[in-house]
Formats: sequence, C-alpha cells, structure tokens
Amino acid sequence: MLESYPENSKPVLVVGSVAFDNIKTPTAETGTILGGSATYGSIASSYFSATQLVGVVGNDFGEEYIDRFRSHSIDLTGLQIDNSGKTFFWAGVYGENFETRETLETQLNVFENFDPVLPSSYLETPYVMLGNIHPQLLHRVLDQMTSRSFIAADTMNLWIDISRDALLSLLPRLDLFVLNDDEAVMLTEEQNLILAGEKLLMMGPQSVLIKKGSHGALLFHPDGYFTFPAYPVTNLQDPTGAGDSFLGAFMGYLASIDKSDFADLKKAVVYGTVTASITVEAFSCDSLEKTSRQTIETRFQELLTYVSLT
Amino acid sequence: MLESYPENSKPVLVVGSVAFDNIKTPTAETGTILGGSATYGSIASSYFSATQLVGVVGNDFGEEYIDRFRSHSIDLTGLQIDNSGKTFFWAGVYGENFETRETLETQLNVFENFDPVLPSSYLETPYVMLGNIHPQLLHRVLDQMTSRSFIAADTMNLWIDISRDALLSLLPRLDLFVLNDDEAVMLTEEQNLILAGEKLLMMGPQSVLIKKGSHGALLFHPDGYFTFPAYPVTNLQDPTGAGDSFLGAFMGYLASIDKSDFADLKKAVVYGTVTASITVEAFSCDSLEKTSRQTIETRFQELLTYVSLT
Repeated sequence: MLESYPENSKPVLVVGSVAFDNIKTPTAETGTILGGSATYGSIASSYFSATQLVGVVGNDFGEEYIDRFRSHSIDLTGLQIDNSGKTFFWAGVYGENFETRETLETQLNVFENFDPVLPSSYLETPYVMLGNIHPQLLHRVLDQMTSRSFIAADTMNLWIDISRDALLSLLPRLDLFVLNDDEAVMLTEEQNLILAGEKLLMMGPQSVLIKKGSHGALLFHPDGYFTFPAYPVTNLQDPTGAGDSFLGAFMGYLASIDKSDFADLKKAVVYGTVTASITVEAFSCDSLEKTSRQTIETRFQELLTYVSLT
Repeated sequence: MLESYPENSKPVLVVGSVAFDNIKTPTAETGTILGGSATYGSIASSYFSATQLVGVVGNDFGEEYIDRFRSHSIDLTGLQIDNSGKTFFWAGVYGENFETRETLETQLNVFENFDPVLPSSYLETPYVMLGNIHPQLLHRVLDQMTSRSFIAADTMNLWIDISRDALLSLLPRLDLFVLNDDEAVMLTEEQNLILAGEKLLMMGPQSVLIKKGSHGALLFHPDGYFTFPAYPVTNLQDPTGAGDSFLGAFMGYLASIDKSDFADLKKAVVYGTVTASITVEAFSCDSLEKTSRQTIETRFQELLTYVSLT
C-alpha cells in the first residue's frame, strides 16, 4: 500500500540481505519464505519514510517477491538482480520457547560476490540502516556516501567471531550501534549489560542500543541512559526479523521527523519495539507487510500506557 | 535511624523468616550474616511506614542483631525468641553472573516449630506482607486477622514443589501474589510470561506481580497491565533479599499513603524496584540498612527519568 509521508520527512537507505529462509519452530516449519535483514528493515521503514534498498537477489527471485517491495513504495534502484545464481538462502531452527536458534544451512549463492554499489540517487540519503551483513560490505557502503548521514548498524555474533577487526573499525563511523544482549557480552567480555553498554560507547559509536528481546531495550547515549520494556506479545510465532524490523522502524521514524537528538532516539526505540512486536506474530514479513502506520501508532500509545505511572 | 512517617500512614505487618545466611558468590564468601525474608521485608518497609514483625529466632540471635531492627523502629512484639535452639540457617552459592542459585545447607532449627502467633496489637494491621515461608504458616497468619487488610504474599519454587495445594488455596486470599519469572512458568506451565500472568490472575489473587530481576517487573491487575524496567545496577554484590526488599518497600509505600488502587500499585512497583537495587549492592542488609528514604526517592526519580520519553 502507498503511504503518504510527512512533508519534511527524509528518505532512509537500507542495506542488507534479501533472502529466502526456511524456519523451523517448536510448533511449525515453513517452506521457502521471504527473509533477509534488508527485507524486514525496508518494509518496516516504509511505514514512516520513503525507503531505498540496496541488496542482491538471484534468478529464483520472482516478480511476486519484487512486488511485495513495490507495494510498499520501496525504491529498488539499488536492488541488484544477479542471474548467475540463486538468492541467498538460510535455514534455521528455534529451540523450546525460542530461547535458542541454530543455523541448519546457509547458501550464500549470489551474495558471495555482492558488491553494494550505491546508485547515484542514494549517495546523500541522510538516514542509513546498515543491516546485518559482513562489516567489510558496510564499510564499502559508507565509503561511497558523499554527505554526512545518520548511520545505524546492526550486527550479530558471526561477525564478532570471524570479522572482529572490520567490525571494530566500523564502530567510530556509526551514530548508532545495535546489538543484542548476548552479543554485547561477547564483544565487551562484560557480563553486566549496563557496563557493557558503557564500554561499547567508548569503542566509538555515538550511541549504543542493546536489545533484550521480550525484556525490552537499553539505549546508551552521551546525553543519558534510556530503557523501555517490550510490547507484551502473547502470540509469538517467529522471532526472525524482529531486530531488523526494530531498526527499520527506528530509522524510518527518525527520517520522518528529520531529527536525531536523544529525545528523538528514545521515541524511535519505542517505535522500533512495537514494530518488531508485529513482525514476530507471523512467519516471514507476513504480519509486518499487512500492518499499517495506524496500527503501529496504536501499539505505540498502548505501550506508553503500560509504562505510565498514572 | 528513626524515620518520621506521613501523618495518615498505616502500619505494615511483615511475617516471614529471620535467619542467618552464609552466601557464596563468584567473587566472595560471607561468614554468618543476617538474612531472612522478614528481615529484608521489614527493614525495607520501615523506610515508608511503621512496621511490625512476626518471626522467630533462636538462642544464638544476639542483642546486636535485635538492635539492627530496633534502629529502624521495627515493632518486635511479634518476634519470638525460642531459647530451645538455634536460628534458622541457610547457606547458598550463586553461579557465574548470578544466573543460578543453589542451596548448600538448610537448618530449620527453631523455625521447625514456629507458630506465627499474632500479638493482639497486630490483628487489624491494614497492610500485611507474607514473606517467603511455608504456605500453611501464611494461612495460619491470615486466619488470625480480624479485619480486612491488603495482603501480599511472595513465594518460591520450593513451595510450588512440595506444597502446591496450600499455595493454591492461599491465592484467593491475596490482594497481590508475587513470584519470579521461573516460578510463574513453573506454577502455570505457561512459557509466555504475559499469558502466565493472566493465568495466575484467574487463580484467585486480586493482582499478580512477576519479577524478572534485572529485566524489571510485570504487574497484572483487573484495571490493566503495567510493566517497568529495573534500576540499572552496576555494582551487583549479592541478589539475596532483593525480592523481599522489593515487597517490603512496595507494602511500606502503599501503607504510607493508605491506598491500593492500580495507580498506587504501579508507584509501589517502582519503589520496590529501586529499594531492591540498593539491597543487591552489598551482602546481607548492609546497604539496605544504611540507606534513607531520601536515597530511595532519588533513585525513584532517576528511574523515572530513564524511562521518560522527553
């Protein structure tokens, strides 16, 4: 559906993976479904601001999938179609209560030779979400940008393991570094999340967000500390893409008001939280795609009520 | 230290264990230290309202320990001194990052024959905290009360295991039932904490509080749902007594304003949260005893700031 954005809203550039997933949960197994950090991120962002995508898909990525992005008015100028192979594929299984996630299969396919070239129309996009892909590729994206943007990047345990140096050198380039609690502990070797967050702030990014899933999120910023609980989800189907939806909505919101002060980041955390809560209520982007800015706004207000002392 | 309480504040009755503990953490081991649910609960409550204690100690409980209660103006009319044996003793060890706790030794001692007889001056106390002791003893306390009070009870996995029926029959007698996340899952067999809380509400208590340690707390009430993050503790020494301090402060606050509507319970959650954050910064009641209403108030305001969107 076409969204109309606020007049002074700015576009968001989302870079990351566009993928096919196969997900197994304690109660269900999907077939091949749409996934990838840029997929979730761009759709989430599209509820708030015009959104540009950079990614790559293969010769098996049919028009019906492209249409799902188009129906959210996502700018696909930067979506490369590499006919030499198949789309990135990931299969994973969640354990009891979604407490663990194991990778069953990864096929890089066309992603192996992916070079995230930015179309000239993206070079000055003021809000950039770097999805969860190899930190070297994220450096490559930032190297192309020709103006100062607000840059947020997500990461995962894999890059901390196999690409720590590239990740560490990325941090000073970021306005916001996002990771989950386990990853924060892994990267800082500090078990206390408050101390871990403070340590991460010292590693270069302007601000740090630690996500704790159903326990909410912690934001560390030079102007202060902010924390907020999660939206109470009673119908968790599949947590895949929650973090990407969070960051997509977060960036979309900032771009929609074209501001990124501490108070703006706080509200963005709440928008990210409630948008992620919608994503996890179905497999793939199914519920994220079907939602609306109005539904997100309703959950935003609802979550504020749950935390209100009056 | 003597506190002066608001003019229309009411007293709180705290029933539970008064104990000696020996605690081992990943970085330290205590000698014999003061512990017990009624100890933490009554001291926490004493910062808000006049507090009465019901418990039992043995012949090894010297005047210097009694004085620690007296210095908080705690009414000890209901503290039984049983010279036939020693004080209840518990030794426990915390694992890495305080994620697990194991009991090394329990000596019931004089607690084995404890009959929580209420002095006549306690029979109409309008706020009652039932600390974490055998549910049969808690029934025995309520059977003696002669007027309608606000009753809150904490529990633990042990009673769910060995005394489920007495615990279940206690629930409809409670205005607030408090337990931690693991216990909520254990008692309801529901993994989703929101659904677990709703299930617990159906089991009889007027309201339910699920504590998640450093992840905050969830309050389920007929008038709505409330959740709040924990105070960011960076100097965790010993989580023992956090829950009891939480509930003591919670009840002390309600008694101090003599109100228990949903909005009052919400504020009480925040007071409980910040008071618990003080307790865990030292072994035993050491930091809880040394704090002040002003310090609690400062942390209360600080925590509100951390959650404020402006």
